[in-house]
Amino acid sequence: MPDFAEPLARLILEFKRLPGIGQKSAQRLAFHVLRAERDEAARLAQALLDVKDKLRLCEACNNISDSELCPFCADPRRDRTVVCVVEEPHNILPVETTRQFEGVYHVLHGSISPLRGIGPDRLKITGLLERIRTGEVKEVILATNPTVEGEATAVYLSRLLKPLGVRVTRIAMGIPVGSDLEFADEVTMSKSLENRREM
Amino acid sequence: MPDFAEPLARLILEFKRLPGIGQKSAQRLAFHVLRAERDEAARLAQALLDVKDKLRLCEACNNISDSELCPFCADPRRDRTVVCVVEEPHNILPVETTRQFEGVYHVLHGSISPLRGIGPDRLKITGLLERIRTGEVKEVILATNPTVEGEATAVYLSRLLKPLGVRVTRIAMGIPVGSDLEFADEVTMSKSLENRREM
Repeated sequence: MPDFAEPLARLILEFKRLPGIGQKSAQRLAFHVLRAERDEAARLAQALLDVKDKLRLCEACNNISDSELCPFCADPRRDRTVVCVVEEPHNILPVETTRQFEGVYHVLHGSISPLRGIGPDRLKITGLLERIRTGEVKEVILATNPTVEGEATAVYLSRLLKPLGVRVTRIAMGIPVGSDLEFADEVTMSKSLENRREM
Repeated sequence: MPDFAEPLARLILEFKRLPGIGQKSAQRLAFHVLRAERDEAARLAQALLDVKDKLRLCEACNNISDSELCPFCADPRRDRTVVCVVEEPHNILPVETTRQFEGVYHVLHGSISPLRGIGPDRLKITGLLERIRTGEVKEVILATNPTVEGEATAVYLSRLLKPLGVRVTRIAMGIPVGSDLEFADEVTMSKSLENRREM
C-alpha cells in the first residue's frame, strides 16, 4: 500500500535528492508545497529551470553569470591588477562579504585531487594564464580552500604563475577570530604558529 | 553589486520560502541545482507542479489523493467500521507505520484553535457525520495531536459523536517507549499516571 498519492510521493523523492534533505525534511517540504498557493510552487519550478537555462560562465573569470561578463568583471570600478583565485563560484561570496577586496576573481571550478583522479587539466587554468600574459595582472591571491586539495592546487598554481613575473600570495590560515585556542585542531594551531607575525 | 546572477538569486529566494530553509541552506541547494543535470532540476520542477495540479481530496475521508478515493478508502480489505480521525493528511503516516491499524481514516484538515480564530466550522466534520449516520461505523478513534488544539478538537468531536451511538476513543498519552522518566515533562508524566493500567 503506498503511503502517499503518486505525485506527492514523487515530490518527496525529488526533494530527497537535494543535499542535506532526508525523508522527514522532504515530507515536510512536500506537504508545505501541497498547502501553499499554486503560484508559489510555480515560481520555484520556474526558478529551477531558469538556473539551468539562463546561466552560463563569465567569459573572463568563469564565475556563473547571466550575461557575457559577471557583475565583478563588468564593473569598471574593480581593480583588474589583483585576481583572487577560488575553487567554486560560491567561494566568491565570503570574500565579497568582507568588503575589503576590490579586485576581480578567477574561478577554477574544482581543485586538484589525485585521490579522486582530478588533475590540473580538469581545472579552468588556461584563462587565468591568458589574463596574466596580457601583463595587466600584478598579484594573484590564491584563495583555494584550506584542505589537502585546496593546498595542492595552491602549490601547483604558485609554481606555474611565479615564473610569469606575477606576485603570488596565499590567504592566511590560523585560529578563527573570536574562537578559543582550546577548540583549535592540531593542524590549524600549527599553521597559526607557523604564520605568526611581528607585533 | 548583486552577489549572484539574477536566476540564481531568484532560486535562492524561492528555496528560502520553504519551511526550515535559511539563507545558507538555500544557497547550498541552489548551487547543487546549478551543478546538477538539467534533467534533475526539470523533474523537481515538474513534481512541484504535479502536486498542485494532480492532487485532490478523497471524497470519503479528505485524505489527499490522485483519484476519487484515496488508497485506504479504495482498499476493500480495510475495515470500514473503525475510523481514525487525524488533523492533517501527514498524520496518517505514523499510524500506518505501526501496521496495527486496519480501519479507514478521516482527515479534518485542521484543529480547533480559539486563539487563531479557528472554530469547528473550519474543519471537515460534516463528511464524518454522514459516514457515521450510515450506521456502518462502530468506533471512532480520535488521533488528533496531544496539543491544546488537538485536545480541544477531540473533546468537541467526542461530544458531537457520542449521541450518535458510536464508540469514541482517544489515543493514549504517556511516557514514550524507550524514554526515561527523567526526561518526561510534568504534563506528560501526569497524563501517564492518570492513564495507568492494571498489570
